[in-house]
Amino acid sequence: MSGKINVAVLGATGMIGQRFVEMLEDHPYFNIEGLYASERSEGKKFGDTLKVRDNPYKQETLDMKISKMDVDHIAKHCRIAFSGIPSDLAGPTETELAQKGVAVFTNAGSHRMDAHVPIIVPEVNVGQFDSIKDQDTYANGGYIVTNANCSSTGIVVPLKAMQDAYGLKQVFVSTYQAISGAGYPGVPSLDIMGNVIPFISHEEEKMETELCKMLGTYGNGKFNFADFKVMANCARVPVIDGHTESLVLDLEQQPSLEELAKTLADFRAEPQKMGLPSAPEQPIIVMTEQNRPQAIYDVFAGSPARARGMASSVGRIRQSNGYYKMWVLSHNTLRGGAGGSMLNAEYAYKKGIL
Amino acid sequence: MSGKINVAVLGATGMIGQRFVEMLEDHPYFNIEGLYASERSEGKKFGDTLKVRDNPYKQETLDMKISKMDVDHIAKHCRIAFSGIPSDLAGPTETELAQKGVAVFTNAGSHRMDAHVPIIVPEVNVGQFDSIKDQDTYANGGYIVTNANCSSTGIVVPLKAMQDAYGLKQVFVSTYQAISGAGYPGVPSLDIMGNVIPFISHEEEKMETELCKMLGTYGNGKFNFADFKVMANCARVPVIDGHTESLVLDLEQQPSLEELAKTLADFRAEPQKMGLPSAPEQPIIVMTEQNRPQAIYDVFAGSPARARGMASSVGRIRQSNGYYKMWVLSHNTLRGGAGGSMLNAEYAYKKGIL
Amino acid sequence: MSGKINVAVLGATGMIGQRFVEMLEDHPYFNIEGLYASERSEGKKFGDTLKVRDNPYKQETLDMKISKMDVDHIAKHCRIAFSGIPSDLAGPTETELAQKGVAVFTNAGSHRMDAHVPIIVPEVNVGQFDSIKDQDTYANGGYIVTNANCSSTGIVVPLKAMQDAYGLKQVFVSTYQAISGAGYPGVPSLDIMGNVIPFISHEEEKMETELCKMLGTYGNGKFNFADFKVMANCARVPVIDGHTESLVLDLEQQPSLEELAKTLADFRAEPQKMGLPSAPEQPIIVMTEQNRPQAIYDVFAGSPARARGMASSVGRIRQSNGYYKMWVLSHNTLRGGAGGSMLNAEYAYKKGIL
Amino acid sequence: MSGKINVAVLGATGMIGQRFVEMLEDHPYFNIEGLYASERSEGKKFGDTLKVRDNPYKQETLDMKISKMDVDHIAKHCRIAFSGIPSDLAGPTETELAQKGVAVFTNAGSHRMDAHVPIIVPEVNVGQFDSIKDQDTYANGGYIVTNANCSSTGIVVPLKAMQDAYGLKQVFVSTYQAISGAGYPGVPSLDIMGNVIPFISHEEEKMETELCKMLGTYGNGKFNFADFKVMANCARVPVIDGHTESLVLDLEQQPSLEELAKTLADFRAEPQKMGLPSAPEQPIIVMTEQNRPQAIYDVFAGSPARARGMASSVGRIRQSNGYYKMWVLSHNTLRGGAGGSMLNAEYAYKKGIL
Repeated sequence: MSGKINVAVLGATGMIGQRFVEMLEDHPYFNIEGLYASERSEGKKFGDTLKVRDNPYKQETLDMKISKMDVDHIAKHCRIAFSGIPSDLAGPTETELAQKGVAVFTNAGSHRMDAHVPIIVPEVNVGQFDSIKDQDTYANGGYIVTNANCSSTGIVVPLKAMQDAYGLKQVFVSTYQAISGAGYPGVPSLDIMGNVIPFISHEEEKMETELCKMLGTYGNGKFNFADFKVMANCARVPVIDGHTESLVLDLEQQPSLEELAKTLADFRAEPQKMGLPSAPEQPIIVMTEQNRPQAIYDVFAGSPARARGMASSVGRIRQSNGYYKMWVLSHNTLRGGAGGSMLNAEYAYKKGIL
Repeated sequence: MSGKINVAVLGATGMIGQRFVEMLEDHPYFNIEGLYASERSEGKKFGDTLKVRDNPYKQETLDMKISKMDVDHIAKHCRIAFSGIPSDLAGPTETELAQKGVAVFTNAGSHRMDAHVPIIVPEVNVGQFDSIKDQDTYANGGYIVTNANCSSTGIVVPLKAMQDAYGLKQVFVSTYQAISGAGYPGVPSLDIMGNVIPFISHEEEKMETELCKMLGTYGNGKFNFADFKVMANCARVPVIDGHTESLVLDLEQQPSLEELAKTLADFRAEPQKMGLPSAPEQPIIVMTEQNRPQAIYDVFAGSPARARGMASSVGRIRQSNGYYKMWVLSHNTLRGGAGGSMLNAEYAYKKGIL
Repeated sequence: MSGKINVAVLGATGMIGQRFVEMLEDHPYFNIEGLYASERSEGKKFGDTLKVRDNPYKQETLDMKISKMDVDHIAKHCRIAFSGIPSDLAGPTETELAQKGVAVFTNAGSHRMDAHVPIIVPEVNVGQFDSIKDQDTYANGGYIVTNANCSSTGIVVPLKAMQDAYGLKQVFVSTYQAISGAGYPGVPSLDIMGNVIPFISHEEEKMETELCKMLGTYGNGKFNFADFKVMANCARVPVIDGHTESLVLDLEQQPSLEELAKTLADFRAEPQKMGLPSAPEQPIIVMTEQNRPQAIYDVFAGSPARARGMASSVGRIRQSNGYYKMWVLSHNTLRGGAGGSMLNAEYAYKKGIL
Repeated sequence: MSGKINVAVLGATGMIGQRFVEMLEDHPYFNIEGLYASERSEGKKFGDTLKVRDNPYKQETLDMKISKMDVDHIAKHCRIAFSGIPSDLAGPTETELAQKGVAVFTNAGSHRMDAHVPIIVPEVNVGQFDSIKDQDTYANGGYIVTNANCSSTGIVVPLKAMQDAYGLKQVFVSTYQAISGAGYPGVPSLDIMGNVIPFISHEEEKMETELCKMLGTYGNGKFNFADFKVMANCARVPVIDGHTESLVLDLEQQPSLEELAKTLADFRAEPQKMGLPSAPEQPIIVMTEQNRPQAIYDVFAGSPARARGMASSVGRIRQSNGYYKMWVLSHNTLRGGAGGSMLNAEYAYKKGIL
């Protein structure tokens, strides 16, 4: 493992934590120092806590033991902590780790709206990485970088492509969110089987602010939010993995549907240029079938192999009354979770911020 | 049965046909003369063709025999035909029945855009009943009245209430549609279990035109469509009964959320004033729980008993960037199917158009 | 309410507790004194804790307030406690209530194997009611009567009918159990959607002993278990309500299939003879369709209205290599839960044991 | 492709056909000459007919075109036809192909009970391959070899291991069968969502005869069925892929549970010895977790990569009243479908029967 950076996975028994583990297997830059979770799981084999259906793990990974969270130990042995801790618990732990010099790449929402904490999707806003230099802990090497909430991540790359090319005025989004987004045990089967739950706590507020933060800028010590409007309605549906999102867009310019499709399909950004290991070669896949994308077929879109589940699939691009309509699908715990922070850490690595 | 009007149920083995039968049990105005379906079902007991899970039928209804479609027989014995025939087959049969003097109340889409055929939801546009007088067949007593497509019906009553009170400018709607809306056998389980299918053939086009037709007027021999805009994205989800719809609305006025909720909850229209048997006392139920309406709990909303499943449930009324947001749930084969035509026929009965 | 017996519902926010409440609405013998649950639910409206999809409640019931469990209060004001408390918590509370003179009718498994506590299904073994006289608390009016576990209850009535008529040697049973049997929140959706879980803690052991206890006798101060053999394999499937069970039976005699079907369909017992309010007129419904019983159509079998969900449906009676094969369906939280204890209490009431 | 044997895939747009295609990608012995289906699919890209959720295909495979069935063409260009044609259509086509000299390896049930047609699972009964020499068509190189029905295949390997070691007397089996087993469109979602259907046409009869045929012998021109008894109850459950089966076994000897587990885990047979490409190294995987095997985690069991989904997983081995109980899971369209015939063809290839 010589030369690789030691990393800790926090919340390794959860839906996001297990995706971090998956993406860290044979990672070219990073080496798993330890898998951390609550006391309850201490000593268990990782394989005995498995919750990811498409079990992609090697036997030696399944055999790894879970450790109890230990901030001092992590600070001593790891340069990076990937955090899949539930948002209601993550805040203080992540702050403490940053104070002790650890670079925290987190899926938790706790710090997303902090004054100098960026929400990064590297295809969109690597410029906002500058904000970490204004974090108090940066002097001794510690900082916090968050990935966006899963619903925002799924659409922010297409939105960025369209913002750049045509200008964005209004985004009307309705979500069809998978149950894995609620963690484990998460949604009781009695609540969701055969049902739609038209409420996910704080999700709409997150979408309506995070998208504008990410598509804005950082300068003079603060984030300047983009000024387009987002109107979000969020619902949970009985799907395991994959958030489907209905978009109606008000753009400043009026491209033809062909142009728009080409803009999306051709979009490339920093992660692609830098060849980051988890970056999908084509971040936005445009589908032309009349009934796609669909979670059951397209959720793992993304190549090469390390970028499995890292592409957003866009389909049914249409126009109605001057608005553009489309459907977007993305993997909520890969692209919209662990994969987001993984890509952020890979970017930091390549840029020498670690 | 003396004094009751004889009616035929067409497509009695299908999802809509079976709801017609349910609503016709002990109906105060109508009497089932016969249950009609394709040759394949001829002679079967109705109970042996059952597809409605919440089996609400009396034994004598379950024992009724299915007849083969016979236009002449129906024309001779029935004043009304309730049609649950699939849209791709319904057109010519319904035309023929009207020509032979039968009043056809249909769920099929075949004639909805005909020059003098109205799409009626009696809480919304009974005035458009006038159009039937301009149908060629009206002279000898035959005519066609359609109910709206299920997704349009679910939201048109709340839209009408808001149009009247505040003016409607734009409607952004995303649907979460139940599988019963596709009929039987309909959606293969391999396609929909654990999935969202972001495509329902012609559904978005229907919503974008039918709503404007219904909320418009009829005069001088033609329909004048209302001029607000509808932007629809339609999807199928793994739910048995009940279409959930995400709405974002651009209104001309800006009522407070309390006002708006009260306007919806207090809305009453012709069916309520006339006391039609299948009319819900309160056509729009406003829910204040943070996570409702939900198909599993609220799909059968509507009282009294004959109006089970005939109310629309509205919840989570919020505001965002000047737009109003809400969720609407309705029963797609009752309110949005058989119940719609039943209410139309009841209205016609009371108005002496039969 | 004069003349009715006051009863407490314990665990009123759970799946079983809510079925007790349903069965107690307008009950001819019993009156709900209070709905009891954990401190967390104290003061909530019953309607705000709703988990039963087929919401059968009257508005005044939905408006009832939940109280915190209070043994002394219950003992003072109630003759009966219906207990839907989870088995791991029920034991001591039920004992205390019995000690204070309350007749406890419980769905919990805690006391089912106690020396003098009977497991009663009144169609099967009302004779075992004698055992309560040997409970220490009986002197001051308190005692505990349990209903069987849900999987055992579903098949014990047909087994009794066959035991009486033909003698039982061996029962091979595989269960397809609904998620409502695991209570709420119960089974995480991530575990069960699209899956079969071939393990339910202690369920097989319960089936292999409870059936023999119920089909045995009580005498000389102890239970004599019946000596047929039960081999059970139990699994959870993605069904809301209704346990389906596959049976292969080794009988002492070899009736024809017609005889056997008739024996089952004609079976009547004490509850039917006594006309208990929740007793189904026909406790075993024999279906002749080739693909029934099915949970979605048949789970609520049972008439009159108060006995909804109280009948067992038996179908596909066949023979193979000298064994009899059949499928049995029953409602796991009505017949197999609250309804079981309700029937027991009704029996006690009529027999003057209250 | 030089040196590889040309093969045709019949029914290439169906659930089984698509698994054949998957297993034939980069196959060391076989080369896909053509994908054949009904006229309706002629000219479509294979990728546009996709029904397998875990899309495992290479782009060049997705781009292959479907041809209309053409017996003469196939007979001329292919040595082998892999048939995934529905059983009700397969019979005559397969016969015709055999008559024209093609070796037909089929999943269809049409010929399974023919006098000289074997049902082969190569871990179990390669000796029965002899029967093909008695087929009329053998002289000119054509013959038919079937794989067993999916439910039988799933358990026949463990049964063989136990038959060899301990003797088999009785098998009580209840199945929990996935919807992919019914083909596409197959089971309507309205029928199976939230339900168990306790009936699969002819499935129980197949299990009760096929198992005895396979575990018997072939000699003197006829099959001698094994004489243990099978009692089967078969049901469909809402699972995509993977048949779970509940087994209760009456063995002649009484091994300890540890011994029995070891016998199963250590079982190896011809395909393993011969190193057939699709043979799982360990055909029976014994799980020790208390709640496994489960379809969502274990359905693709089997290594190396070419044997994905080819192992049977056995768990919860217990004893009750002298009977052995266990649960078995297998992939119904890989091990229990296309994979079965693939292994048969690989065996034939290695043995020079092609």
